Amino acid sequence: MKKRILTGDRPTGKLHLGHYVGTLKNRIALQNEYDTFIILADLHTLTTKPEKENIQKLNENIRELMLDYLACGLDPKKVVFYRQSQILEVAYLYLLFAMLVNKPRLERIPTLKEVMRDLKMENASLGLLAYPVLQAADILMVRANLVPVGKDQESHIEVTREIANKFNNMYGEVFPEPEALVGNEAVTLIGTDGKAKMSKSIGNCIYLSDSSEEVKKKVMGMYTDPNRVHGNEPGQVEGNPVFIYHDLFNTNKEEVSDLKSRYQKGTIKDVEVKEKLVVAINNFLEPIRTKRAEFENNPELIDQILLEGTAKARAEAQETLKLVKEVMGL
Amino acid sequence: MKKRILTGDRPTGKLHLGHYVGTLKNRIALQNEYDTFIILADLHTLTTKPEKENIQKLNENIRELMLDYLACGLDPKKVVFYRQSQILEVAYLYLLFAMLVNKPRLERIPTLKEVMRDLKMENASLGLLAYPVLQAADILMVRANLVPVGKDQESHIEVTREIANKFNNMYGEVFPEPEALVGNEAVTLIGTDGKAKMSKSIGNCIYLSDSSEEVKKKVMGMYTDPNRVHGNEPGQVEGNPVFIYHDLFNTNKEEVSDLKSRYQKGTIKDVEVKEKLVVAINNFLEPIRTKRAEFENNPELIDQILLEGTAKARAEAQETLKLVKEVMGL
Repeated sequence: MKKRILTGDRPTGKLHLGHYVGTLKNRIALQNEYDTFIILADLHTLTTKPEKENIQKLNENIRELMLDYLACGLDPKKVVFYRQSQILEVAYLYLLFAMLVNKPRLERIPTLKEVMRDLKMENASLGLLAYPVLQAADILMVRANLVPVGKDQESHIEVTREIANKFNNMYGEVFPEPEALVGNEAVTLIGTDGKAKMSKSIGNCIYLSDSSEEVKKKVMGMYTDPNRVHGNEPGQVEGNPVFIYHDLFNTNKEEVSDLKSRYQKGTIKDVEVKEKLVVAINNFLEPIRTKRAEFENNPELIDQILLEGTAKARAEAQETLKLVKEVMGL
Repeated sequence: MKKRILTGDRPTGKLHLGHYVGTLKNRIALQNEYDTFIILADLHTLTTKPEKENIQKLNENIRELMLDYLACGLDPKKVVFYRQSQILEVAYLYLLFAMLVNKPRLERIPTLKEVMRDLKMENASLGLLAYPVLQAADILMVRANLVPVGKDQESHIEVTREIANKFNNMYGEVFPEPEALVGNEAVTLIGTDGKAKMSKSIGNCIYLSDSSEEVKKKVMGMYTDPNRVHGNEPGQVEGNPVFIYHDLFNTNKEEVSDLKSRYQKGTIKDVEVKEKLVVAINNFLEPIRTKRAEFENNPELIDQILLEGTAKARAEAQETLKLVKEVMGL
């Protein structure tokens, strides 16, 4: 039997090249090897943004997310896509797991402090503190064996493993202890500003759904080597965002090699490097755009994929909860 | 329309006279005035006792609790009895409410520290910290208007009111802000040892299900006035457990008055006061015993009452969750 993976995203909007490089590319490969569940983690958005105005964006965000997934090649024949908030059973597991984890354990998790600092929160809600427990409920609900994560996120899975282990010891064997599947890929992609990780809130993103015109505009305005003023000065290739993108998205490796060598010698202007990057990224995005448009013209299909996936996930959750209640004697 | 009440107990075993005086008597009166839901709060037991051996006692404890309820006169035609763990929706409300309450708010609740001290816990589980949120989910799930509590417990209801208020303000009016219905009755009953509140763990209880022989044995061994050595010395009536019990359970007020006056004068032995108390308590318990035996001989009836009540409660919970999701836009 294939091993099972749980992965997914909070539906906060359209995906960008950073998501592609960091997770999507990996998921597209994994779907052939593993039984894959992808969670649209809308309840998780409430841990930091419970306001009604944010909830009202969820439907549209989920539609965009699904379009990006499907356009990139995640295949609903291989992947179960489901909406977290439609699964009552996940809340029940969350409640049961809350009894098995200590408050100080959750307080020690570094991401809690990071989120609070980033969002300038004075106090965490109970829901934010309990975030890793909800994550554990998501993962264990489908009894996943593996959870693809970035290198910095292995500690998240640790809480899930502890809960699975404690549950199994206290009540009886129900859950696999899921392992983190750490990707070898570049985990984060620098933004077009060259200053920070590509991130919606900074506005330094190229989206998977950007038109060729938008890509051109964004790439032509990209940051390169700040110490190079004229095209006839030698420039730095390493860490230079345009070359990072060339390495990732330009399939013409000879061209990339030639551009780099001329850049280092000072015999090429930025504009040429960028023009070639526009072509490369648009070549990469073109089939994605085509597929996106197909799905955009068929919105019922997305609804249907989500409905079917959610029904499958719920059946899994019900089966898990049945096992859980049996061994607990509830 | 009648106002709605939510009340109930953790199923930890048989009820005693302290429960009768503290809550049951009040509930029996209230069932005629209010639409009453009684929760058998089995999930709450997991906040302090998640171990399998404790869960395995729940079915039997629930049976005993139901026998005590019904024997005392709580009427399944007037009251909805339901088992908390059978209502998935309560966990979902709990999850949503966790987003609306701050961690420090929960840490400040005095009962958390008391429970941890009493149970010699080093660390609270997340579930114990979140106890008042689960309580809020119970109360708001049936959209109760009133919650009968002892005088020391008003602060519990405050968290529920805050959550109801915050939810209504953020998303739209769904919940009444429930009020504490503070009983005028003696809230706590001293145990047969005269030292502490009647409590199972201390072993100073007279149970509603005790036989007349057990009552006799317990009453004859009761603590009275520690300063009175012989029956011909004047004794203290106030605070004397045998007279507290006489006041509460002996319907022959003249007899009680006579006993007190002779006790104060030193013209009666303890044994006579106690013998009269045995009769009084057995008179009080006899109809309860008869009714208990009827239900004990008809166990399917209790199952049926619980099934029907749980179905009614679940229908309420589903309706509430529908309203909740509608106003949230989930």
